[in-house]
Amino acid sequence: MNEYRYEDIHIGMTESFSVKVTEEMMESFRGITGDINPLHNDEAYAHEQGYDARVVYGMLTSSFLSTLAGVYLPGRRSLIRSVECKFPAPVLAGDELTVTGEVTDMNDDYRFITLKISIRNQSGTKVCRGKMEIGVTE
Amino acid sequence: MNEYRYEDIHIGMTESFSVKVTEEMMESFRGITGDINPLHNDEAYAHEQGYDARVVYGMLTSSFLSTLAGVYLPGRRSLIRSVECKFPAPVLAGDELTVTGEVTDMNDDYRFITLKISIRNQSGTKVCRGKMEIGVTE
Repeated sequence: MNEYRYEDIHIGMTESFSVKVTEEMMESFRGITGDINPLHNDEAYAHEQGYDARVVYGMLTSSFLSTLAGVYLPGRRSLIRSVECKFPAPVLAGDELTVTGEVTDMNDDYRFITLKISIRNQSGTKVCRGKMEIGVTE
Repeated sequence: MNEYRYEDIHIGMTESFSVKVTEEMMESFRGITGDINPLHNDEAYAHEQGYDARVVYGMLTSSFLSTLAGVYLPGRRSLIRSVECKFPAPVLAGDELTVTGEVTDMNDDYRFITLKISIRNQSGTKVCRGKMEIGVTE
């Protein structure tokens, strides 16, 4: 886990990590949320809807933004203030995602940073883009 | 699970549900994301930071927006296009959240709806506010 202080951070700083979305993650996410929607849980239904596999919950994809902030940038001193994300392409169970955040702005008065976010799949297709504002605590 | 079609939906339509954030959900979310940040995992550290209990992952709170869209509004035919949320107050482990979405706009050309989101804790404090755009499939 990174432990960047506000003073350690600068505009342009980037962190990135990769993660494979497993069936177990899908089950865990359903367990937490109770979201039993068949697009995410019924392969036959997902096929009917034109997908090659069960579609990963968008909010499961965006869960990895928690990791980006809380482990990587800034890491330990992270407190998420806001998140925006768009899902331009579907994530399918088994996809390997690369999650990247780049510091695009810093607010010295309130000591928060703005990250530009992108998540790409193993083919390089962007599956999530957006931004987060993250407070950096003492 | 609701099964609203696009034609069944109108501006002003509202759905709401309540959920308690349990320790098990916190463990599951950490298992999915690998977010080991101590604010969410170490009660002593959370106390040092001025909180009465471990702080719930912001992205775990927003996970319930998956349920709102995929089970309640529109339910079965949901496909989330985008999410925006701000976290004006912390959620603590054990809090009971009420998640509400209200249709504020509809796009007939692309058949998606816009929901205004609010999540309040058991004291009525708003802990998440934002909006989602959700496609309503056939």
